[in-house]
Amino acid sequence: MSEKTILLDHGSGGLASQQLISELFIKHLDNPILRGLEDSAVLKNRPGNLAFTTDSYVVDPIFFPGGDIGHLAVHGTINDLAMRGAEPLCLSLGLILEEGFSLQELEQIIISIGSACKKTGVPIVTGDTKVVPRGKGDKIFINTSGIGFVDENLEISSLKACEGDAVILSGTMGDHGITIMTRRAGISVQGDLRSDTMPLHKLVKSLLAEIPDSIHTLRDPTRGGVATTLNEIAENSGLAIELESKALPVRPEVNAACELLGLEPLYLANEGKCLVVVKGDSAQRALAIMQSTEEGRDAAIIGKMVAGKAGRVVINTPVGGSRVVMALHGMPLPRIC
Amino acid sequence: MSEKTILLDHGSGGLASQQLISELFIKHLDNPILRGLEDSAVLKNRPGNLAFTTDSYVVDPIFFPGGDIGHLAVHGTINDLAMRGAEPLCLSLGLILEEGFSLQELEQIIISIGSACKKTGVPIVTGDTKVVPRGKGDKIFINTSGIGFVDENLEISSLKACEGDAVILSGTMGDHGITIMTRRAGISVQGDLRSDTMPLHKLVKSLLAEIPDSIHTLRDPTRGGVATTLNEIAENSGLAIELESKALPVRPEVNAACELLGLEPLYLANEGKCLVVVKGDSAQRALAIMQSTEEGRDAAIIGKMVAGKAGRVVINTPVGGSRVVMALHGMPLPRIC
Repeated sequence: MSEKTILLDHGSGGLASQQLISELFIKHLDNPILRGLEDSAVLKNRPGNLAFTTDSYVVDPIFFPGGDIGHLAVHGTINDLAMRGAEPLCLSLGLILEEGFSLQELEQIIISIGSACKKTGVPIVTGDTKVVPRGKGDKIFINTSGIGFVDENLEISSLKACEGDAVILSGTMGDHGITIMTRRAGISVQGDLRSDTMPLHKLVKSLLAEIPDSIHTLRDPTRGGVATTLNEIAENSGLAIELESKALPVRPEVNAACELLGLEPLYLANEGKCLVVVKGDSAQRALAIMQSTEEGRDAAIIGKMVAGKAGRVVINTPVGGSRVVMALHGMPLPRIC
Repeated sequence: MSEKTILLDHGSGGLASQQLISELFIKHLDNPILRGLEDSAVLKNRPGNLAFTTDSYVVDPIFFPGGDIGHLAVHGTINDLAMRGAEPLCLSLGLILEEGFSLQELEQIIISIGSACKKTGVPIVTGDTKVVPRGKGDKIFINTSGIGFVDENLEISSLKACEGDAVILSGTMGDHGITIMTRRAGISVQGDLRSDTMPLHKLVKSLLAEIPDSIHTLRDPTRGGVATTLNEIAENSGLAIELESKALPVRPEVNAACELLGLEPLYLANEGKCLVVVKGDSAQRALAIMQSTEEGRDAAIIGKMVAGKAGRVVINTPVGGSRVVMALHGMPLPRIC
């Protein structure tokens, strides 16, 4: 392209818009359905129930150790489909660009999206681009919506968690949240902090292939972290949750950075982790399946669903005490994803 | 709600986010699937191919004569589904809110969305809300994605336009575009300028119920207007298009405002109109079906597909001449939808 930045004209629907579509989007995201460039994509249907989800990504900074806003937008929406037990079929891509945004950075993000789509096998089939004047947006906001298919006999939901179920976390907590926060604050910390952005549909598929009836609830603890997501599961299931502090997987670098900043890893966003609520007697089997995958190699049983005040989450501390873990409240961490 | 404006905390994923969801979104958009508040909506599948589309809405001003950004977001995505002959099933709703945005205005928009969903019979089944700091967005941006079902034997596409087909426009041109432009420029014009925002799925359904095999192409001329959309149809079909200037429906108020501002209605955005390319011998039947609906009462046959240079659109002027109508080029009209 001859221009170096996004112009208002790129959002006009005229020739400049078409140039952006052909020289960037079709170039890096190409597939037969997207190429049609019609008002809607039309795809072959498949058996099963439909899963449908949407997420907007406004993360700041847009590039960070471990990924960028493009990776997040593909993985995050795939993960939201996977959390209902769905096999993802395709994604849409809605861009809101700020006038003056670097075309080279835009291309880098589109390349990330294309590469994440290729790796996950989930294509972008339809899209839309808008441009807002300088100062009315911030570089790039991305919306991805996604469609998947769920086995008609499968019902995974936070309503299904039962007393005696084990709670498994698929890996270490807080990697994404602490990476964005330290990056944004310009704080440099010893050790390798990087986002955990990762697709989880294959891990979920492995679990459902082997023990479909034992998997009751799947949730990815993004904004609000593990603490907030567990509070929601407890609330919806009408049960309490008991966590073991020493079982919670946290990377030492993340712990160190949290201590420095006075943060609690339980409240930090994750972008490649899920919470699995599984029948108690299948917990070890589920753990083994998860640990045998790359995404779940650090998986750990962190607690269990127990009778008690509905919605209450308590954590047993190493010194033999226990404390209540509330949902995130009054701690504005904007633009973490 | 006790707060009067959107706070960063409303996007944190914690309690303030949940309050927004229960006190605004569930209140005005309620349905059994949305109420689940899971990571994805799960819906019963239906026979037919799947249609999938996405659109972001960044219109400025967010309230305008004839509607608001909420109406646009529902109708626009329904129309993109209808343009492939799909029956819309459901929508997603992704909001990007600016810190400091009025909660009362947000509620007004959510009420509009709820009312448009109710009237069209197409529910919001899944959603997401992000908040960006003051000055990094502009009040509210909305993404709606949509799913619909298309009869497996139906293939409506701009590739299918044939020589001899008639081109019908479902109503007057430019109403939305001129309303936004005059409003934004603070120009007051004689007469009643108002957006044409309107859902078109029922009009399309009427056509497909009676003459499914005669309908070759459906497109809604939004950004870039009728001129740009016709250029795309001509390009994709490998044909030329001949328009009759005197057949083009334009409301007198819109014409007057265009003359005042030096604009051409052919390039102005429409939000409740479609172009129908129909077999020549079914043109009168299609016109009658369209004119019998409220959405299509001003429908007119405006031209035909002809052999000639692929992608060329010409217009015959009232004085017996003709001129080429190009796609929109170099005319930045940002945030028209």
